[in-house]
Order: sequence, then C-alpha cells, then structure tokens
Amino acid sequence: MRDFTTDHRWLSINTATVRKSHGVEQPLTDIIEACVKRDIRAISPWRDQVAAAGLPAISKLVKKHGLELSGYCRGGMFPALDTAGLKAARDDNRRAVDEACELHAACLVLVVGALPGALAGQAAHKDLALSRNQVSDGISELLEYAITNKMPLAIEPLHPMYAADRACINTMEQALDVCDALDPGKTGALGVAVDVYHVWWDPKLEAQIQRAGKERLLAFHVCDWMLPTTHLLEDRGMMGDGVIDIPRIRGWVEAQGFAGYSEVEIFSSGNWWQRQSAEVLDTCIARHRSAV
Amino acid sequence: MRDFTTDHRWLSINTATVRKSHGVEQPLTDIIEACVKRDIRAISPWRDQVAAAGLPAISKLVKKHGLELSGYCRGGMFPALDTAGLKAARDDNRRAVDEACELHAACLVLVVGALPGALAGQAAHKDLALSRNQVSDGISELLEYAITNKMPLAIEPLHPMYAADRACINTMEQALDVCDALDPGKTGALGVAVDVYHVWWDPKLEAQIQRAGKERLLAFHVCDWMLPTTHLLEDRGMMGDGVIDIPRIRGWVEAQGFAGYSEVEIFSSGNWWQRQSAEVLDTCIARHRSAV
Repeated sequence: MRDFTTDHRWLSINTATVRKSHGVEQPLTDIIEACVKRDIRAISPWRDQVAAAGLPAISKLVKKHGLELSGYCRGGMFPALDTAGLKAARDDNRRAVDEACELHAACLVLVVGALPGALAGQAAHKDLALSRNQVSDGISELLEYAITNKMPLAIEPLHPMYAADRACINTMEQALDVCDALDPGKTGALGVAVDVYHVWWDPKLEAQIQRAGKERLLAFHVCDWMLPTTHLLEDRGMMGDGVIDIPRIRGWVEAQGFAGYSEVEIFSSGNWWQRQSAEVLDTCIARHRSAV
Repeated sequence: MRDFTTDHRWLSINTATVRKSHGVEQPLTDIIEACVKRDIRAISPWRDQVAAAGLPAISKLVKKHGLELSGYCRGGMFPALDTAGLKAARDDNRRAVDEACELHAACLVLVVGALPGALAGQAAHKDLALSRNQVSDGISELLEYAITNKMPLAIEPLHPMYAADRACINTMEQALDVCDALDPGKTGALGVAVDVYHVWWDPKLEAQIQRAGKERLLAFHVCDWMLPTTHLLEDRGMMGDGVIDIPRIRGWVEAQGFAGYSEVEIFSSGNWWQRQSAEVLDTCIARHRSAV
C-alpha cells in the first residue's frame, strides 16, 4: 500500500468538492488554478462545470498545466419512459464520451440512473427491474462507442439510498455482474468506480474488490460518512471526520494493483461549500496525508 | 397471494406509527384501544411504550382484547466496547425475550446494533467487522435463551444508511448467512423480519426471500420510500405514497408460504406524527387494502 503521509502526489480533486466557496458557485477555471497552485496533479470535473466554462477553454487549461483527469463526471442516467427518452440518453452519453476523450480523462464515470422522473420528485413507475434492464442495455450500447474511442467506462455503484432516483446499481457485486456480462474478457474497457461513501457498509466489499481485480478498478473516490448524516445527498464529510475506515478499503483496492489517484468528492451544502475554497483544498491535502 | 382488498384482517400496527398524535406522545393503552375499535387484530409494540404503561397492564389489555402481537420491538444492539457493555446487552436482550413471552409475541425483532457509541453521535471505533462478529456472538448466545423460552428471534436487516449507528446487518443475504450459521436446521427459532423500507432496493431480494423460505420469514413490515426523502430515520411514507412496489415483494414472501400479518411501521416526524392518530389508523387500513 502506497504511503500517502509525506506528499499528495496521488490526490485528485473532484471539482464538486469546491463547487461553491462561501456558498457561491465557482468557475471551473478558478478551481483549476487553485489546484495547480497547490501542486494538485489531477482533477475530476463535472460536465456542467465544463460546459459553463466551455470545453475548448478547459481542454486548453488542462493541457497547459499538464493536469490529469482521474475521471470525468458523468455519463449514465440511462432509464427512460419511451424510445425517444432512451435515444436522448444514448446521444447524451456519446457526447460525454467525446468530452472525456477531449480532456484525456482516465475514465467516464457512470451514474446509471433509476426510476424515470424520480430525480424530479415523481417516479413514472416502480419497476426497478425494468430500469436495471435499461441500464444494462444502455451500457452495452455505449460500450461499443467507448471502445472505439478508447474511453474506459466506470460504473459507480451508488449507495442504496439513491436506488430510486440516481442509480439502480447499488452494490459492487451488482456492478461487477454487469461488467462480467458485457466485458467477459476483462479488457479494461469496462469497470467500476469505488467510492467509499457508497460501498463502505457492504459486508461483501473486500471480496468484491478482489473479484474486480486491477482491470476493473478504474477509480477510487473518498470522503466520509458523518454521524449523524442530516441530508441524503449533500452531507458528506471530510476524510477523517466520519466513520469510514478509508485506509482499510484503500488497502484492499491497492492489493489488487490499483495505482491511480485517490479522488476527493465531497457534496456538503451545509459545511464545506460554505467555507472558502482555499481552506477546503488545503484541508483535502492535509487529510489525504493523514486519513486516507 | 392473499387478497387484502376486501378487509384488513391481516393488518398489524407497529405502535411507533401512532407514537405521536399532533406531535404529542400517545400512551400505548390509548393506541391499543384505538386499534381495537377499528377491528385491527394485531399490533407490534415498542419496549419503551410498554415500560411506560407497565408490562402487566399491557399484558392484561392485550389478553382482554384477544390482540395478537406480530412482533415485539425490539432486542439487539449487541456491540459494545468492553465486557461489561456486552454483558449489559446480553442481560437486556434476555429481558426483551421475557417481555415478548409475557405478551405472546410471534417473534422478538432484533435491530442488531453497529459501531458502539455511534447512535449517540460518536463512534468508539470504525471496525464494522468487529461489530459484526459481536452481533453474531450476541445472537448465538441469545438464541439458546430464546429457544428455551420458545421465542423466535427475527433479525431485521436494516437499510445500509443505518450501518454505522443502528444495525450492521444490512442485507437479507447477510442476515440469512447468520441464520444458516447459527440455526442450520431451519428450526423456526431464528429468521428474519422483512421490512420493505430496508430491502426494497436490493437486486438480490427475490432470490434471498426464496432462500429464506417459510421457516425464516418471521415478519413482514410495510411503509414506503418517499421522493425526496428528507430525513434518514423519520421520513417514512404511507404505503402507496412512495416508490416501493409493495405488492410485488409481498407476493415473493407469500410464495414462500408466509401467511402472517402485514405490519405497518412508519416513523414520520414531519407528517404522520403531526396528524391525529385516528386519521393515521384509518389511512393505514385504507392503504393496507389498496396499496399492500
């Protein structure tokens, strides 16, 4: 297991972590400059942030600084009510692959979606199995395009509390079942993003990380689970402030040969998004060394 | 699958559902009378509610009305930091068995506990595997006592969002692994309480219900998962108001031969606990017929 205590060369910042500074939305260009200033070598930006700044501008800035992308957030949201909806998702996912390629991301992260309409508060149906089939079909179709474009797809199993509205793939085992069905050869084209927030509770986590192996472990995300957790989406904690034994999980992942970035992804409307970005980034660096 | 549309003979009320009326704590005696008045044949009371009214008084009232207990809430909370804590949990669980016997409950429901101290906001450690071992040991020891007293123990796998503070058994598969290890003969002494709120998201749910079989299916709890869910503990929905396909899950359970009560358990500080108990009970009856 790599020693993170002496530097932060393997730290990546998911740009959602500093999406807001003192509650105010931050331009991605500013976030990038702030990372570069701290010798942070990798980021993982969100599509809406890239779109707001313009893909060409971000591409140029990333190249100028020699920044790496530990991932690109995000593709997915495959389920839909009708053919038009499914096609729109397909087209949007192909654009996400294109953007990820332009930015030379290590992978496109997939938050696969769940019940159509649920994210807006009104699910069109309750048939989770149907959504899961649509997700498999969607990934299968996207995989061909991604292989052609040499962009690995990383399925991110989301915590079961998001099963209705964000992702109906909710365990590593389930994600790996999809990987094995669609990419039986373990070619590296399809794998998983392991976010400790989503999977830390899973009694089968260690075994499934071993099952995944190096070829399927495409990304590793960290933050912490707070006690109490006061909001289902935006109350993630800074590493070390919660109950997740992050080093243990990182040990399992690295034992399989994972040697990529440890990406900090914290959604925190009540705490970290209310602070200054500089403080948040400095804390990420400190905690990367002490708690990851 | 039984037809629930014409009556509510298989409805049970978990008394937490009407714990508060207009936000005010209700005596268990009043709750029982309100249930009896509506020809509700079964309840599942909580230990603190019973203690407040006095076990003899409740026992007498239950007998007088010929009420059944679909379960007794609850034993568990096994993990502790030291021998004294483990012994205190053991002793308390034996008392819970005694009370369940006095009330002729169908089973004692076990919410097994997780990281010591976490429920109070400060976990003493992050070793979930250790807690899981303590849970297995605790159930194993309690099982002997429960068998002697002829009180079935129902492990309730809790939603993974409670893995830190309430229960580190989080899937049906995990609960059944414990059952198979401690009661390989499927004697009926140890099984699971299937609460749709906790397990509806699980891609292996149908398979694990089949694995459980009639001998292990000791209780069936219903409520609904709301969109959005605004509180991790106390924002459960009334059946039919959320996204859980309850009839589908009930069908799976009954296909295994389960023929017990469908127990309504709703924690809802912002909605149902703010209404009058009478309205809540009437709604439970209506939804039992239309949405379960």
